[in-house]
Amino acid sequence: MIQTPVIIINFKAYLESIGVSCLNIAKAAEVVYKDTGVQIVVVPPATEISRVSSSIEIPVFAQHVDPVEPGAHTGAITMEMVKEAGATGLLINHSEKRLLLADIETLINKARANNLVSVLCTNTPAVTGAGAALNPDFLAIEPPELIGTGIPVSKAKPEVVLNSVDIVMKINPAVKVICGAGITTGDDVYAALKLKTVGVLLASGVVKAKDPRKVIQEMAEACLKFQNEIRG
Amino acid sequence: MIQTPVIIINFKAYLESIGVSCLNIAKAAEVVYKDTGVQIVVVPPATEISRVSSSIEIPVFAQHVDPVEPGAHTGAITMEMVKEAGATGLLINHSEKRLLLADIETLINKARANNLVSVLCTNTPAVTGAGAALNPDFLAIEPPELIGTGIPVSKAKPEVVLNSVDIVMKINPAVKVICGAGITTGDDVYAALKLKTVGVLLASGVVKAKDPRKVIQEMAEACLKFQNEIRG
Amino acid sequence: MIQTPVIIINFKAYLESIGVSCLNIAKAAEVVYKDTGVQIVVVPPATEISRVSSSIEIPVFAQHVDPVEPGAHTGAITMEMVKEAGATGLLINHSEKRLLLADIETLINKARANNLVSVLCTNTPAVTGAGAALNPDFLAIEPPELIGTGIPVSKAKPEVVLNSVDIVMKINPAVKVICGAGITTGDDVYAALKLKTVGVLLASGVVKAKDPRKVIQEMAEACLKFQNEIRG
Amino acid sequence: MIQTPVIIINFKAYLESIGVSCLNIAKAAEVVYKDTGVQIVVVPPATEISRVSSSIEIPVFAQHVDPVEPGAHTGAITMEMVKEAGATGLLINHSEKRLLLADIETLINKARANNLVSVLCTNTPAVTGAGAALNPDFLAIEPPELIGTGIPVSKAKPEVVLNSVDIVMKINPAVKVICGAGITTGDDVYAALKLKTVGVLLASGVVKAKDPRKVIQEMAEACLKFQNEIRG
Repeated sequence: MIQTPVIIINFKAYLESIGVSCLNIAKAAEVVYKDTGVQIVVVPPATEISRVSSSIEIPVFAQHVDPVEPGAHTGAITMEMVKEAGATGLLINHSEKRLLLADIETLINKARANNLVSVLCTNTPAVTGAGAALNPDFLAIEPPELIGTGIPVSKAKPEVVLNSVDIVMKINPAVKVICGAGITTGDDVYAALKLKTVGVLLASGVVKAKDPRKVIQEMAEACLKFQNEIRG
Repeated sequence: MIQTPVIIINFKAYLESIGVSCLNIAKAAEVVYKDTGVQIVVVPPATEISRVSSSIEIPVFAQHVDPVEPGAHTGAITMEMVKEAGATGLLINHSEKRLLLADIETLINKARANNLVSVLCTNTPAVTGAGAALNPDFLAIEPPELIGTGIPVSKAKPEVVLNSVDIVMKINPAVKVICGAGITTGDDVYAALKLKTVGVLLASGVVKAKDPRKVIQEMAEACLKFQNEIRG
Repeated sequence: MIQTPVIIINFKAYLESIGVSCLNIAKAAEVVYKDTGVQIVVVPPATEISRVSSSIEIPVFAQHVDPVEPGAHTGAITMEMVKEAGATGLLINHSEKRLLLADIETLINKARANNLVSVLCTNTPAVTGAGAALNPDFLAIEPPELIGTGIPVSKAKPEVVLNSVDIVMKINPAVKVICGAGITTGDDVYAALKLKTVGVLLASGVVKAKDPRKVIQEMAEACLKFQNEIRG
Repeated sequence: MIQTPVIIINFKAYLESIGVSCLNIAKAAEVVYKDTGVQIVVVPPATEISRVSSSIEIPVFAQHVDPVEPGAHTGAITMEMVKEAGATGLLINHSEKRLLLADIETLINKARANNLVSVLCTNTPAVTGAGAALNPDFLAIEPPELIGTGIPVSKAKPEVVLNSVDIVMKINPAVKVICGAGITTGDDVYAALKLKTVGVLLASGVVKAKDPRKVIQEMAEACLKFQNEIRG
C-alpha cells in the first residue's frame, strides 16, 4: 500500500539515473522517508530496479512495461520482469512513453492482478477523465508542455489540476490524483496538495539537483506542513 | 448530421475496396439509402475518398487520420486532406489502427472543430467508458477477437454491448453507441439495435459479399423493422 | 521509365498540397515539363493522387505506402491503392516516415513486381550503401538536419553526397542517386548534378514558393544547362 | 573480444528467463564454457543484466537498446544503462524488435564508440547485404518464419545462409555471419558452421529445454568437432 501524500521520483533515462548515482538518489529518498515518515517512491530505469530494490526499503516502481505476456518477445520489458526485480508498482503511459488506449486498460488490469500499484499518466482533464474510467490506483496529470521546465502546473495551470480532480470525482472517485510537471520545490508540492491532489510525480527537480537529498527533504517537509494544517 | 439507426460500412484495405469495385459498393449503398431512407455511411480508403464523394450523395467517412497538423509530414493523412477530399466524418482508433490515448482526444476535438463526425472504436466496456469521457459523436464497440469472424458480438457477447451502453449512459449519455464486429446479416443488425445501440459498423460482411447491395438492403430493412416496432 | 536528370517534387502534408492548390502546382510542373522536356515527378498526398493523375500527364508518385498486403487493414495505404489511383512510383523511408529495415526490402521488391518506380530515401553515406544493397531504382540522400532549411546539402555537405555516390558505385552501380534536402534554387539543382547525382528531391522550395512555376522552371533550366555542358 | 565459433543464447521474455531460472541458465552456460573453452554469450532481459553479469564471467549482451541518448526518456533502455549494468554487447534489430534503418546505423556506431559488440539481426540475404554496409561486428541471419520452430535454417533454407555469407563477403568481409532461427541441437550448430558462419544465435532451444546445460554442452561439443575437422 502506498500512503498519501506521496512523492514519486521518476529517474527517467538521465546519466545520473544509473549506477552509483542512481543508488545514491534512491538512498537519499530512503533517508528522508525514515526521517519524516512521508511516503516516497523511486522509479529507476529497468536495468537498475533489482539493485535499487535490494538496497532500500521504500517502494520501487517501474517506469514502463510493455503490454505483452511472457514469451518470445526479444527486448520487451514485461510486468513479470519488473516484479521479479523487486518493483511493487509502475508508471503507465508517461508522456515520453505513450501507449495505445487498449493497452492501457490491459496493463492496469494486469497490474491489479499482480498486486502492483498502477500510476496512469495523463495530459489533460478530458484524458484524465478517460483514465479514471480505466480504474488505475493513481492518475498523474502532467501537461507535457510543462514537463522539465521547472514551471509547476500547480502555478501555471491550476485549473488543469482542479478540473482533473473534479472529473475524476465524477467518474471514479476511488482513483487518487497526483500532480506532475514542473515540480522542483517544496512550495510546488504544497501547492499541488492544496489543489486536492494526493502527491506529486517529478523527475529532473530531484535527479538533476545538486543535492537531491535536500530537495526531497524540502518536499517531504511541505507534505508535513500541509498535513499539519488540515489536521490542525 | 448523421441520422440513426445508421449502417457504417468500413471498406478497409481489401482488393475489392479500390477502383471500380469500390465505387460499385458505394453506389449500392446509395441505392439502398434512396430506397429505404435508412442512413448509410461508406468508409473507403483515403485514396478513394475524392472519387467516391464526388459520385454519391450519402456521407463518406475516412478510415483514419494521423494526429498531425498540416506541414512537413511526408506520407501523413491529415484531417484537412480527408475533409478536402469530401469526407464528412472519420473513424478513430479502429482495432487495426490503434492510437495513443492522448492523440485520440486531439483527433476528437479537431474533428468537432472541423464539423466532422467522429466515431471512436473501442474494444471493451471499460475502454468504451474511457472513450465516452473524451466526448466523440459515436462510440463503436468492437471486441477485436470477433472482427471478421461472422460471429456477431450481439450474439456472442451481448453483455459486452449492454455493459458498454450502460457505462456510456453513466459517463456521457450524449455519446451514441454503435455495435461492431462480426455483423453480416439483417438479423445481426436487428439484434444490435435491440441491445440499445444506434447502429452497426461492419466491413467484410458487405465488402466481401457476393452481392453487397443485397446484404446492405437486408440490413436496412432490419433497421426499418426495428423502427416500426418501437413506434408501433 | 523515369528520364534523368529528374526533379521530384514532394508535396508533403502542407495546406498548399491539397485541393485546388495541389492541382495548380502539379499543373505548373506539367507546363514546365512540356516547355523544357526535363523530367518532373509530382508526389501529392494519397488523397490527391487520383485527382492529380487524371489531370496531368507527368508521372505521379506516392509519398509512402504501408508494408501490408490487401486485406483487413483499416486506415492502411497499400501499394495497390496508390497504383489504382494512378501512381507510377513511390517514395520509401522518407525521413518523416521512416520504415523498418525489413519492410524497406519488402516494399522495394513489391514495387518492382508492380512496375512502380522506387525512390529510397536515406540519411548518411553508410545508410545509402545499405540502401544500395536493397536495389531500389533511386536512392535519395537527404541529411535530415538540412530538410526544409533552404541550405542545400550540395553546398553545406557536398562530401555527404560524394561519399554516397561513391559507395553506391561500389555496392550497386545500377542504382541512381538523387540529392535532397535544402534544394530551393536552380543553382542548387545544378550543384547537385555536378556532384554526380541524377536529380533532386525537394518540397517546400516549390510547394511554399510564391510562384511554384517560376521555381520549377528555373530548376528545369539548370538541368538543361548542365546537360548542355556535358554534351558540349 | 568475442572468440569464434560462438553460441549466443537469447533469453527473450520467457518466464524461464527471469529470477533464479535466468541465473541458472546463465551459470550453466558458464560451466560449459569453462569445460569446453567454447565461447558462449548470454543475452538476458534488461532487468536481469546486472544480476547475471555480477554472477558469471562469460559475456552478457543486451537484447535491445533504444536509439536515444541519456536524458528525459521515461521507460527507455539506453546503451549507457546496459553497459553500466555489465553488458559488453547487444543484439540490434531482432525480428521481435525491429528498428528503423537510420536507427540501426546510429546504434552500430554508438556500440563501437562504447566498446560494445554489435550483433545485427537480419531476415534475408539482401537485408544481410544492407546490414553489412552498416559495419556491425556480427550479422545474425534469421528467417523469421523459422524462429522458434525447431526447424534449423541450416537445413530448411541453407541457400539463405550461403547467399548471406556470399553477399557479406562481397560488401564487407570484415563482418562475421552468425546463423539463427530454429537451432536446437548440436547437429544444427555443426550444420551452421559448415555453411561458413561463425556461430549460432538461439533462444527457446536452450531456454525452454528441460536441461539447458545438456543442450549447451552438446552445442559446444559440435563446435569443437567442427574445429578439430578444419584443423585436422
